[in-house]
Amino acid sequence: MSLGKKSPFSPQAKRVFKGVIFDVWQWKQKMFDGSMETFERIKRPDTVQVIAVVKDKILLEKQKQPAKKGTFLSLPGGRCDKKENPLKAAQREMLEETGYASKDWTLWKKFQLTSTIGWTFFVFIARGCVYKQAPRLDAGEKITTTLIDFEKFLALSDNPSFHGKELAGFLMQARFNPRLKKKLAQSLFHTK
Amino acid sequence: MSLGKKSPFSPQAKRVFKGVIFDVWQWKQKMFDGSMETFERIKRPDTVQVIAVVKDKILLEKQKQPAKKGTFLSLPGGRCDKKENPLKAAQREMLEETGYASKDWTLWKKFQLTSTIGWTFFVFIARGCVYKQAPRLDAGEKITTTLIDFEKFLALSDNPSFHGKELAGFLMQARFNPRLKKKLAQSLFHTK
Repeated sequence: MSLGKKSPFSPQAKRVFKGVIFDVWQWKQKMFDGSMETFERIKRPDTVQVIAVVKDKILLEKQKQPAKKGTFLSLPGGRCDKKENPLKAAQREMLEETGYASKDWTLWKKFQLTSTIGWTFFVFIARGCVYKQAPRLDAGEKITTTLIDFEKFLALSDNPSFHGKELAGFLMQARFNPRLKKKLAQSLFHTK
Repeated sequence: MSLGKKSPFSPQAKRVFKGVIFDVWQWKQKMFDGSMETFERIKRPDTVQVIAVVKDKILLEKQKQPAKKGTFLSLPGGRCDKKENPLKAAQREMLEETGYASKDWTLWKKFQLTSTIGWTFFVFIARGCVYKQAPRLDAGEKITTTLIDFEKFLALSDNPSFHGKELAGFLMQARFNPRLKKKLAQSLFHTK
């Protein structure tokens, strides 16, 4: 069963399931002994996240979502729409969720969580954010925002309420490695 | 379309696709404004990884796999078989891939990469590993092993050839946080 579309994996891969978020792809792969096995991978929309700088603080979201218990902390961000450029998606999500906008964007990190799932994370730094308009939340979002300082931001790296564990390793590096900490502070605040 | 089986997500969730590795589950979720949306999650077999201690060294694998270019580094480990206990899976994978066995096992970390995919990682420490038998590799595995010291082990945390980026954040913590580094060294080598 092939549902067409160009494969993000092996050229032979076929999409065998198309979901709301997740698509499943399969192909026959030759093993080292010549035997064949079915390999399977997942593809899903990419994720954008924003480290939004407001003067000397960073914008943090407190969020509730259907099907998740309690309140969690997160950065502004979300899924890229179909064929949406990651930077555009980051700008759209930040404006929708927080009402803030910026004219000074940099890609900080681009990474995949794991090799078996086609899913890229783009983490942007948005400097000089200003409040533009009231947030426009989806029916599946309840979001308020708060401003935290750099030390509190780095401390999110092992805060169980922080819903950004994909990022936590990078924050942890910056928290404990003085060279990386200084470099990130410079990227965020243009300090020397 | 429901394919039965108990849901690992919402009690209303139904399995709508059953793959070789990945299953897809969906349910109708009430939004904050009362509207309904289809939520979707992935379930896959859990993963085990082993920090295998051989005297004062750690066992590292050099591996080739079909559909992956080049050689990569990894810890012993793999997927849990259906209903297989994670500790049993870890013991089985280490013996199959490396020929080493241990009688001294501890669970070091248990974590999920992300909330939208039902996939748990179990990372075990196996102390006092001894070589028991020749490895028994699958048709999809080419593995050799080498022994590295603790500092080289921690340095895997930002080695692009290391295929264990799920773990890299924890190794990074131990590498840069002296308290965590000492604690991990004690767990591995029983040093005071």
